[in-house]
Amino acid sequence: MIQRKNENWFRMLFIWRGSVLPKVLPRLILLLILSISIVYFKGKLFEYKIPLNPAPFTLFGIALALFLGFRNNASYDRFWEARKIWGALLNDTRSLARQALTMSGYAEDSKEVSTFINYLIAFTYALKHQLRHTDASVDLTQRLDPVLAQQLDTAKYKPIMLMKAMGNWVQQAKEAGKIDTIVQSAFDDNLNKLSEIVGGCERIASTPIPYSYRVLLHRTVYIYCFLLPFGFVDSLGWMTPIIVTFIAYTFVALEAIADEIEEPFGTEPNDMALNGMCSMIENTLLEMAGKPIIDSPPVKGYTID
Amino acid sequence: MIQRKNENWFRMLFIWRGSVLPKVLPRLILLLILSISIVYFKGKLFEYKIPLNPAPFTLFGIALALFLGFRNNASYDRFWEARKIWGALLNDTRSLARQALTMSGYAEDSKEVSTFINYLIAFTYALKHQLRHTDASVDLTQRLDPVLAQQLDTAKYKPIMLMKAMGNWVQQAKEAGKIDTIVQSAFDDNLNKLSEIVGGCERIASTPIPYSYRVLLHRTVYIYCFLLPFGFVDSLGWMTPIIVTFIAYTFVALEAIADEIEEPFGTEPNDMALNGMCSMIENTLLEMAGKPIIDSPPVKGYTID
Amino acid sequence: MIQRKNENWFRMLFIWRGSVLPKVLPRLILLLILSISIVYFKGKLFEYKIPLNPAPFTLFGIALALFLGFRNNASYDRFWEARKIWGALLNDTRSLARQALTMSGYAEDSKEVSTFINYLIAFTYALKHQLRHTDASVDLTQRLDPVLAQQLDTAKYKPIMLMKAMGNWVQQAKEAGKIDTIVQSAFDDNLNKLSEIVGGCERIASTPIPYSYRVLLHRTVYIYCFLLPFGFVDSLGWMTPIIVTFIAYTFVALEAIADEIEEPFGTEPNDMALNGMCSMIENTLLEMAGKPIIDSPPVKGYTID
Amino acid sequence: MIQRKNENWFRMLFIWRGSVLPKVLPRLILLLILSISIVYFKGKLFEYKIPLNPAPFTLFGIALALFLGFRNNASYDRFWEARKIWGALLNDTRSLARQALTMSGYAEDSKEVSTFINYLIAFTYALKHQLRHTDASVDLTQRLDPVLAQQLDTAKYKPIMLMKAMGNWVQQAKEAGKIDTIVQSAFDDNLNKLSEIVGGCERIASTPIPYSYRVLLHRTVYIYCFLLPFGFVDSLGWMTPIIVTFIAYTFVALEAIADEIEEPFGTEPNDMALNGMCSMIENTLLEMAGKPIIDSPPVKGYTID
Amino acid sequence: MIQRKNENWFRMLFIWRGSVLPKVLPRLILLLILSISIVYFKGKLFEYKIPLNPAPFTLFGIALALFLGFRNNASYDRFWEARKIWGALLNDTRSLARQALTMSGYAEDSKEVSTFINYLIAFTYALKHQLRHTDASVDLTQRLDPVLAQQLDTAKYKPIMLMKAMGNWVQQAKEAGKIDTIVQSAFDDNLNKLSEIVGGCERIASTPIPYSYRVLLHRTVYIYCFLLPFGFVDSLGWMTPIIVTFIAYTFVALEAIADEIEEPFGTEPNDMALNGMCSMIENTLLEMAGKPIIDSPPVKGYTID
Repeated sequence: MIQRKNENWFRMLFIWRGSVLPKVLPRLILLLILSISIVYFKGKLFEYKIPLNPAPFTLFGIALALFLGFRNNASYDRFWEARKIWGALLNDTRSLARQALTMSGYAEDSKEVSTFINYLIAFTYALKHQLRHTDASVDLTQRLDPVLAQQLDTAKYKPIMLMKAMGNWVQQAKEAGKIDTIVQSAFDDNLNKLSEIVGGCERIASTPIPYSYRVLLHRTVYIYCFLLPFGFVDSLGWMTPIIVTFIAYTFVALEAIADEIEEPFGTEPNDMALNGMCSMIENTLLEMAGKPIIDSPPVKGYTID
Repeated sequence: MIQRKNENWFRMLFIWRGSVLPKVLPRLILLLILSISIVYFKGKLFEYKIPLNPAPFTLFGIALALFLGFRNNASYDRFWEARKIWGALLNDTRSLARQALTMSGYAEDSKEVSTFINYLIAFTYALKHQLRHTDASVDLTQRLDPVLAQQLDTAKYKPIMLMKAMGNWVQQAKEAGKIDTIVQSAFDDNLNKLSEIVGGCERIASTPIPYSYRVLLHRTVYIYCFLLPFGFVDSLGWMTPIIVTFIAYTFVALEAIADEIEEPFGTEPNDMALNGMCSMIENTLLEMAGKPIIDSPPVKGYTID
Repeated sequence: MIQRKNENWFRMLFIWRGSVLPKVLPRLILLLILSISIVYFKGKLFEYKIPLNPAPFTLFGIALALFLGFRNNASYDRFWEARKIWGALLNDTRSLARQALTMSGYAEDSKEVSTFINYLIAFTYALKHQLRHTDASVDLTQRLDPVLAQQLDTAKYKPIMLMKAMGNWVQQAKEAGKIDTIVQSAFDDNLNKLSEIVGGCERIASTPIPYSYRVLLHRTVYIYCFLLPFGFVDSLGWMTPIIVTFIAYTFVALEAIADEIEEPFGTEPNDMALNGMCSMIENTLLEMAGKPIIDSPPVKGYTID
Repeated sequence: MIQRKNENWFRMLFIWRGSVLPKVLPRLILLLILSISIVYFKGKLFEYKIPLNPAPFTLFGIALALFLGFRNNASYDRFWEARKIWGALLNDTRSLARQALTMSGYAEDSKEVSTFINYLIAFTYALKHQLRHTDASVDLTQRLDPVLAQQLDTAKYKPIMLMKAMGNWVQQAKEAGKIDTIVQSAFDDNLNKLSEIVGGCERIASTPIPYSYRVLLHRTVYIYCFLLPFGFVDSLGWMTPIIVTFIAYTFVALEAIADEIEEPFGTEPNDMALNGMCSMIENTLLEMAGKPIIDSPPVKGYTID
Repeated sequence: MIQRKNENWFRMLFIWRGSVLPKVLPRLILLLILSISIVYFKGKLFEYKIPLNPAPFTLFGIALALFLGFRNNASYDRFWEARKIWGALLNDTRSLARQALTMSGYAEDSKEVSTFINYLIAFTYALKHQLRHTDASVDLTQRLDPVLAQQLDTAKYKPIMLMKAMGNWVQQAKEAGKIDTIVQSAFDDNLNKLSEIVGGCERIASTPIPYSYRVLLHRTVYIYCFLLPFGFVDSLGWMTPIIVTFIAYTFVALEAIADEIEEPFGTEPNDMALNGMCSMIENTLLEMAGKPIIDSPPVKGYTID
């Protein structure tokens, strides 16, 4: 996630870092060169004038903008839903921590409560690693007892196995007479929500926007942009390359951003800052349990990963 | 569901598999031939010039794009809602499995727990078969005891009958003194959610987008595309077939994709991968119950069915 | 609700039944005749040429499409929300039936359970009749004991009175020692949902889209369509009637469909198939209770009422 | 709320009552007069021709339609959300009444149940008066015992104080041994929902659409409409006033309707019929309690207030 | 938040305070001056005529309006969601207060209930200060006992620590025999909701709209507006500056408003009135507890902060 202070409206026009411009620049330069040659040859291809004018581009440009808007909306909705789910993870781990601290009958500084808080933190990291297809073993070994950490090492759905461990913890608390079935149910409600959180993340990660959509819109955007100079060369003359590149910048960049935020769990600049969130959840749970807070990783070049 | 890695922006322009192009190609070729003849005859029909120009097409093209956008949104919402419901199925079966494993009072490896997990897996398959109108008997016989499997064979609403079986299982657990009414209620809450999942799927499967909408938009798209060459033949000359086919490609393909994802439980390339999901739910439940995982079916030609 | 199989893309262009064309045809013919006369008189009215050209129609046509899109969305949302509520009715009656069968302590084939299932079925029919302002007495007498049926006959809010009867049934089960307060609460949660279902239907039925909106858009659509031929007569000549009628067909038909699905509980072709749904709910509840299923009414001419 | 039967499509074009036309007519007449003078002076201002043509109006008209569409959507969403909240009030009061009647242990015709039902009815009226800033004392004195009515007279948040009275009622029922804590919890869940209903209404009533939006769109609509005749006078001649007024009618009327339904609790023609709803809630609760129903106030000139 | 009465439609055209005009005026004046010089030099730059015409601006203006509409929607949704969350805070604190007053077994005027109400009020202020990055110590010291206030002084997530204190309060009430586990669960449900409220606010505050979007749209809007006069100078002559500034006003102002409400917890004119809401929540809770109400801060120049 890119985190920059709001700049003055004028300086914002010339921002490089955090903009998607670096990514799409090669394509725009290619288009610029093409446009310049088209102007130079006055829209002719092998002595033959391409008979195009702005009319079909107006008609179709607006339709294209509409379809791009749809793609964009769908991508942004995915991004925001993913963010909501991680927000729910924060809420739910806090609620479970509060329940463990104030309803479980164990003392706040007991080993049992500490174990449960660690389950929650490990759960958060396990989910992050599953979504990013990275290795969870370091983060888990650090926070769990060796036996469980080893069991998880071979598990395919690690967060789910941790949830089962939490379920067992609650059951043991009940068997130890610390809680009754009603409190168990209260824990269980929040565990159900955790289950929804894992499933929600998996859903977004495993189901992209239908592939055919993306191919169709991608093609339409690029074919449109590369035909554009032919349509405007007669009326705009040497302004054609500038105008065409400007229009293409918006269309192409919008598609590129939509492409990036569509998979919000990745590590591209506009994706969610899962590392930052994990560390934040860890800190708030540690503070609740009366333990020292760990420093957050520093922000590098406006980007939190 | 089509599952392809993200291609380079340039190579994505020439993708064949996973694109909807093969499906709509015949119609586009028909239109291309028509456009070429119109250009050849200079827009005349039996010596009579058709007096059309781009103006009404601009006006109407944008309106058409808007209406197509509506259709598209409605279809995508259906697709995504269906996906959410199957996500909820995953969450809910995991929650029920966790409850059976940690709250039911039965040992994790007891026959009772195993039966319940099998109910959940069978439920998932039964729902898939109901939605795809396929025969569930093989999948059910494999996972259920013969008496119940036979009963289900003649049942019309198989998943519901399986839910009743789960309800009976919980009631028996209570009668056996394994759980009290509060835990029974906790199970019951999740069974209510299962009920919502079945109903949600049935709703999407049984209620298409109002038929008149689809007819209206279908007609408008095709009439528009087939009138288009007459409007542009004077100003675009021999570029008419290319431009018209390009515009028609976007409109027709968008309608075709919308048509496909509107019924998300089917087996067309962009539909949901119900087989993959069933096997995934089965695996995560088996892992929770400490049983070996079954290999997922391999991906064939980028498509998961 | 119209239920047709997907036709081939070509044959779908010529469908008559299930299309809204029959309904709007007279208006379109009127417009066609008007356009033809305008072309015949070359856009003159009493020797005076009406000075109109396509420019204002382009400008305004797109605005109109946008506003029509809004109306359309609002109508479709109402339709889909109504469908969701009836879906929730299915889910909730199934959940209550499952609770009565597996949690109530009565035997599955006891008279009490049978009575409760009948309450649920009668509730469904009573709701349908309330929404369609039809007479519920036949459907209720058939399924309820005479005393209650008579009481309901004079009741204004029949489904609510049936819900109260269900509440009494639960209370009596508790007094008979069959259930405890916790199970009573579980029933009560689902009765609360039934309450939301009734209220949701009443809300949609009693609160149309603000009337001023409908008048405004209706007027705009028709005035626009009837001015259109004057704008295009100069540039399109004898193609004017064809183009104008084609554009008007889309606008007018879209408004007509929106008008139809806006009141989803009616009996027009695109409205919800309440009869079919009642019979489906009845069947699934009967199957759960182990009773024979009643045949669904046959589909007539693609339409389920 | 305006309640009219659906008219024939033709007669709907000439409806006066229920249309927003009377409200915006003076502004349209002003514009009509202005347009006529512009045509008369051939677009000159003090001998100087205003150099305008349709191009910028096409460009900007569509942008304006889009922004107006946004405003419109936001207003309609507020209206519909307010309606949903009042629908939830109906559902929730019915649920609470059912709980009091069937779960409280008091007889259906006992004084206690009757008091509770009156609390619910008084709550409804108190909420209406709070939202409309009218005096609640008559409606409250009629339905509550004098001591409570007097206490409420000075209260600022009357519905909340009534909810507290309901909470006390439930607590007293528990202390009298009529209900246990579980039933108390069931009541409490529904009281929580009541709390959400009050807060939801207060939210909509106290937070308008950001003022700057409304000013911006208002200005843009009117400046646009008053510049419009200058843009079309050259090409449309004496048709200018007609076309301009027609376009302005749609834009101005749409803004006026959006303005009206944005504050749905007011008493303008398109606002919600709070009086009708209060009387409806009262009747359904009285019917449930077995008491006679009060006649609804008659509809005057298609409008329910 | 700006709070103004609805003005007459005519006077609303000339409103200064509450409009976003003062903020964007310098940029518009810059553009106006530029446009005037362009008209003066007849679109020439160093004797060279810039070959631009309205066609590409029409095409792109509509696309721009669409993308701006997307940005606007996303911002408004954030604003409205933030408002909903604070509405939920009001509802939830009222529910918890009602529970403390009527379900806790303590007398309404007991020290314990008073402490709990103060926790709720302090929680509200702590959340406000966290969101605005202001110092909470004055507001907390005033309402909490010194020990807790000091503990909170060093806490990073103050509202969460207050929620833990509430959890402890409930636990102590249970240990004192005032409530049983069921009532504890009812409190716990509402504490879970509080947890969701805090997390929801943190989510909106910490996750802006992806930065690349904002940069892209910002650039597109400004480049578009500054190219606009070149496109219209030939056809509109000296009307160019007026028309261009008018179009630019709408685009630039819309972007500025979207920018402002995107971060709804700030202190800009269109942001949420958190101070007003805190004082309102405090008052309604004090009234419920039978304590005197504190006067609200006066509205200054139409703005509530």
